Amino acid sequence: MKRTARILTLCLLLPYAVLSQDKGNVQERQHINQVLAHQAEAWNHGDIEGYMQGYWKSDSLLFTSGSKIQRGWRATFEKYKKSYDTKAKMGTLKFSELEITILSPNSAWVLGHWELTRKDDLPGGVFTLILRKFPDGWKVIHDHTSSR
Amino acid sequence: MKRTARILTLCLLLPYAVLSQDKGNVQERQHINQVLAHQAEAWNHGDIEGYMQGYWKSDSLLFTSGSKIQRGWRATFEKYKKSYDTKAKMGTLKFSELEITILSPNSAWVLGHWELTRKDDLPGGVFTLILRKFPDGWKVIHDHTSSR
Repeated sequence: MKRTARILTLCLLLPYAVLSQDKGNVQERQHINQVLAHQAEAWNHGDIEGYMQGYWKSDSLLFTSGSKIQRGWRATFEKYKKSYDTKAKMGTLKFSELEITILSPNSAWVLGHWELTRKDDLPGGVFTLILRKFPDGWKVIHDHTSSR
Repeated sequence: MKRTARILTLCLLLPYAVLSQDKGNVQERQHINQVLAHQAEAWNHGDIEGYMQGYWKSDSLLFTSGSKIQRGWRATFEKYKKSYDTKAKMGTLKFSELEITILSPNSAWVLGHWELTRKDDLPGGVFTLILRKFPDGWKVIHDHTSSR
């Protein structure tokens, strides 16, 4: 009888545990969404350093684009500053169709589309991000960007 | 005194806990390495279905290459069969410079290089994988492949 009561309690509580986890994941997804929204906002103000705040400030940051691997936050920042040295080159950045998956309480990944609206062209493509949750929030630890 | 004893015990046990986790991670990395080694082996035997065993057999599998997103194990399998319909097109696949990072007990990511040795060309590039550990082992749930 005791066993039946335990099973019954478990069955009653399980949906709440699942709902509570789902709620937690929804919040974490919102936080990750905000990180990316802040990045796009900073970019569109010509603020590459602000954009870079979404990335893990570590020599272990791994950035891949066009099959080239860039290591470290500082090197990635320098590369961005060199490649986008004018507001015209930066254009207007838009992230869309974000699919955010929480892998564990402190890790997640994102698949999304990026597009730069510029005077003469419209570069864009797909990116995969891996994020970790640090004491100061979610940060991108790996970015694999492809151009269409 | 009791508190000091507890802290002392914790300090003595902590290195073992860390070592034990490191050892677990080493084992998981070996398992992931094996998944990729089996994939390359199957590919080099002209066995695309065997190669596909490394991927999550789900409609939610996400495969990205050249900024195109392919959804689902079956669709990915069909695409591979169509693109590599002869042994000559398949060539010899080699994965190298694998960097495997364990994110949680059941999630990990891999950055690596791929290369196909074929009679007339040598395509290759960089890939990012996201893996989850299922009851039947580690499976790739997302693959973002770029060509150089």
